[in-house]
Amino acid sequence: MPLGKLAEIAEGELVGDHGTVITGVSEIDKAQAGDITYAVNRHYLDGIHKSRASAVVVPMDVTKLDRPMIRTKNPYWSFAKILEVFSPQAPRPEHPIHPLAYVSPRATIGEDVIIRPFSVIEDGAVIGDETFIDTGVHIGINARIGRKCAIHPNVTIRERCHIGDNVIVQAGSVIGSDGYGFVRKNDEYYKIPQIGNVIVGDNVEIGANVTIDRATIGKTIIGSGTKIDNLVQIGHNVEIGENSLLVAQVGISGSTKIGENCRFAGQSGTVGHLTVGAGCTIAARGVVFKDLPDGSFVSGFPAKPHREELKIMAALRKLPELVRRVFTLERTLAKLEEK
Amino acid sequence: MPLGKLAEIAEGELVGDHGTVITGVSEIDKAQAGDITYAVNRHYLDGIHKSRASAVVVPMDVTKLDRPMIRTKNPYWSFAKILEVFSPQAPRPEHPIHPLAYVSPRATIGEDVIIRPFSVIEDGAVIGDETFIDTGVHIGINARIGRKCAIHPNVTIRERCHIGDNVIVQAGSVIGSDGYGFVRKNDEYYKIPQIGNVIVGDNVEIGANVTIDRATIGKTIIGSGTKIDNLVQIGHNVEIGENSLLVAQVGISGSTKIGENCRFAGQSGTVGHLTVGAGCTIAARGVVFKDLPDGSFVSGFPAKPHREELKIMAALRKLPELVRRVFTLERTLAKLEEK
Amino acid sequence: MPLGKLAEIAEGELVGDHGTVITGVSEIDKAQAGDITYAVNRHYLDGIHKSRASAVVVPMDVTKLDRPMIRTKNPYWSFAKILEVFSPQAPRPEHPIHPLAYVSPRATIGEDVIIRPFSVIEDGAVIGDETFIDTGVHIGINARIGRKCAIHPNVTIRERCHIGDNVIVQAGSVIGSDGYGFVRKNDEYYKIPQIGNVIVGDNVEIGANVTIDRATIGKTIIGSGTKIDNLVQIGHNVEIGENSLLVAQVGISGSTKIGENCRFAGQSGTVGHLTVGAGCTIAARGVVFKDLPDGSFVSGFPAKPHREELKIMAALRKLPELVRRVFTLERTLAKLEEK
Repeated sequence: MPLGKLAEIAEGELVGDHGTVITGVSEIDKAQAGDITYAVNRHYLDGIHKSRASAVVVPMDVTKLDRPMIRTKNPYWSFAKILEVFSPQAPRPEHPIHPLAYVSPRATIGEDVIIRPFSVIEDGAVIGDETFIDTGVHIGINARIGRKCAIHPNVTIRERCHIGDNVIVQAGSVIGSDGYGFVRKNDEYYKIPQIGNVIVGDNVEIGANVTIDRATIGKTIIGSGTKIDNLVQIGHNVEIGENSLLVAQVGISGSTKIGENCRFAGQSGTVGHLTVGAGCTIAARGVVFKDLPDGSFVSGFPAKPHREELKIMAALRKLPELVRRVFTLERTLAKLEEK
Repeated sequence: MPLGKLAEIAEGELVGDHGTVITGVSEIDKAQAGDITYAVNRHYLDGIHKSRASAVVVPMDVTKLDRPMIRTKNPYWSFAKILEVFSPQAPRPEHPIHPLAYVSPRATIGEDVIIRPFSVIEDGAVIGDETFIDTGVHIGINARIGRKCAIHPNVTIRERCHIGDNVIVQAGSVIGSDGYGFVRKNDEYYKIPQIGNVIVGDNVEIGANVTIDRATIGKTIIGSGTKIDNLVQIGHNVEIGENSLLVAQVGISGSTKIGENCRFAGQSGTVGHLTVGAGCTIAARGVVFKDLPDGSFVSGFPAKPHREELKIMAALRKLPELVRRVFTLERTLAKLEEK
Repeated sequence: MPLGKLAEIAEGELVGDHGTVITGVSEIDKAQAGDITYAVNRHYLDGIHKSRASAVVVPMDVTKLDRPMIRTKNPYWSFAKILEVFSPQAPRPEHPIHPLAYVSPRATIGEDVIIRPFSVIEDGAVIGDETFIDTGVHIGINARIGRKCAIHPNVTIRERCHIGDNVIVQAGSVIGSDGYGFVRKNDEYYKIPQIGNVIVGDNVEIGANVTIDRATIGKTIIGSGTKIDNLVQIGHNVEIGENSLLVAQVGISGSTKIGENCRFAGQSGTVGHLTVGAGCTIAARGVVFKDLPDGSFVSGFPAKPHREELKIMAALRKLPELVRRVFTLERTLAKLEEK
């Protein structure tokens, strides 16, 4: 692939020879001749003189380099575009709908759909055009999957759940499992039927082995553009706004509402029945116990304003010393009192 | 469905017209005409005048309402009964044991069992009457599943594990994976064979993508009536009593014994080889490091009596201020001493 | 099995009758006549007089016992060897490669491979000799699985990932899911293609419902001999050294490098882009926020040297009392000043 063509795809400005042939992509320290690499900021360029990369995607403030470069406003995005060029593509299978898949005669399958062996499309399910369903997937009764989705192996999407367009579900995830709802009666727990569903918007990505429970009644909602990492738990009747990020092992308890553009860092979470405003950031391991206004940045258990938590953390490290200082004060004061 | 009939099912007392036709269930703020909704306590009725619900399930202390109501001692349970009426039921499949399932000729299948495509019942396995096994399930060699169970898609129940009656296993869960047992030898870890099994009692529900390890020798035990939420980890040789609750992302380390009627809130856990008495509550994120007597209510890391933990949490928020106060004391005292 | 033969297998010294017939293995308190049990140290022998075990594996410092014993330097390892003898073995199936599996004609299958129903071996995949692939497994395009591996039900190993020899993957795990990589552009998140893979060394064990993400570019690496427990999350481009332990629900964020012989206790983790040296121990729930030198023993959030964390924990329990003491000091000092 000529570098000039890549610069176009990357929406960047090429400094160097348009015809330089690029044969691969690599990290800056592992690049071989023929590879293109990237630097998100100038700091990444420190080791560039040792790199064997043939070209580099750089931010606009880089004006000079010892080799060809593509200058761009958003180097990471430009590099993503270049990665697309070099992504290995599986050849279109001989049988788009594999004879070893089970597709109900009462299901509706769009154009150019691929369904791999041992996947199941149940009665009344609808699969949108150009969607790819890998092996061992379960699409339940009356579930709807949008267009251009990729559903990876061994995913379960239960009955009546709706998935938007351009959604990716990584392997092993479960969408539409029963919510955790029981009521105590005669010293036992009685199951509350979970008859709602899950609605996933467009352009959502759901990681591997994620669990998203269906609503008791009504809907559990994942807003368009939201990206969910591996092993995340979303309880019943949760609503998550658009373009939010939930990093690995996050847990959102039932009926909590989360605004758009929120970021939940790894292993953080919320208790149930809360409202988290738009644009909130919850730091790693933070657990939200009460409603948060828009734009909050919180951390800790229970989650507090991040600056407050940082002060507490700093003070905590000095706590053993503080105990000694208080002891000294007590002794000194006692002596003074004696006098 | 006439309201009078629903009142009977809900074991409640109808105030209003027996013939009112109810066509659905809904949350109080989303109800449409024809819907029945519920109020767990009087507080829930604040917005009732704005609701379009045609009837409400209410607690006994509600004596007057602007529309038909079903008065009951346990409104949440009554509502669960009503939800059952309105739960969509999948029609009985044409082939109860689907020709695309693999059922060993040496397995024993009860009456009225449903087995969906691409599920596997291995040699010597026993499936009880009226049990439903969804697609992509693995029932291992000599495993036993009781009567009236529902095993959801892509669940794995390994060899020799026993599941009681009326058990629900949500999608993607693994019962009987090898316990995490290794012994150091010659600078490497040597695997300790895990030859025990898992015994799950009656009326247990296991959430999605849960993992329950088989015992090294002997049994990992989940007591009857216990309800386990999504992404919970149960180590080898753990024993959990009856009617306990384990909320999402809880982790119970190996060989720990937990009594009946315990409640583990989200992301809590225990270290291994402990005994947690009956009726204990472990608050969210609490981690138990030592044996707990019956009826303990603990929180924090390590878990402490909840009241003690609350006091520590409250004091912690004032810690930065405390540091300043100690500093002021030191200065004041130093000045005083000088005099 | 005669006890003399077991002593040989256990590499131990028999004290007692070589011909004693052993018919099973058991825990010390549950043993029946005919069972052999073990005591890792002398403390375990306290209850031995009440045990019905016919023989015991003991450490070398035990010189006298009321019944036959096998003395050995590493009783736990010796017991593991004996457990192997008593492990139930599944009979070799009639059809090693089951006719209900889907094996691409462009896959390469070694000698004595077993592939169970509804598993998929995609184009270009290679399965090493004597490897066992249970039901519902996905082996992606051009993936390579080594010799003598056991891949349990419903596991997904995505395209181009490499698994070494003697590797065990428990049920439901996902190897090679896309890393969590997105770049913000026009108020939305744009997916960064994840075109790297995962390399798993020899003798690795991966628990149930684990997720290991493929690298963005390059490799996510799990070193030989490393043992990963259930529900662990390994981010993209992580590198883990040899013979490390990651206990259940651990999370390792992207691009972090972990040395050999490390131990991550339950629910611990690291943020991304760190280096954790060899031989480090991270206590339960510890979260590493900065590089750790070899041999570190840390705990807490953020992880600190364990001794420092213990002191903070101890001081924390006295914090409410400390607040009162400071208040008393302030009053006493104020009175003194008045004088």
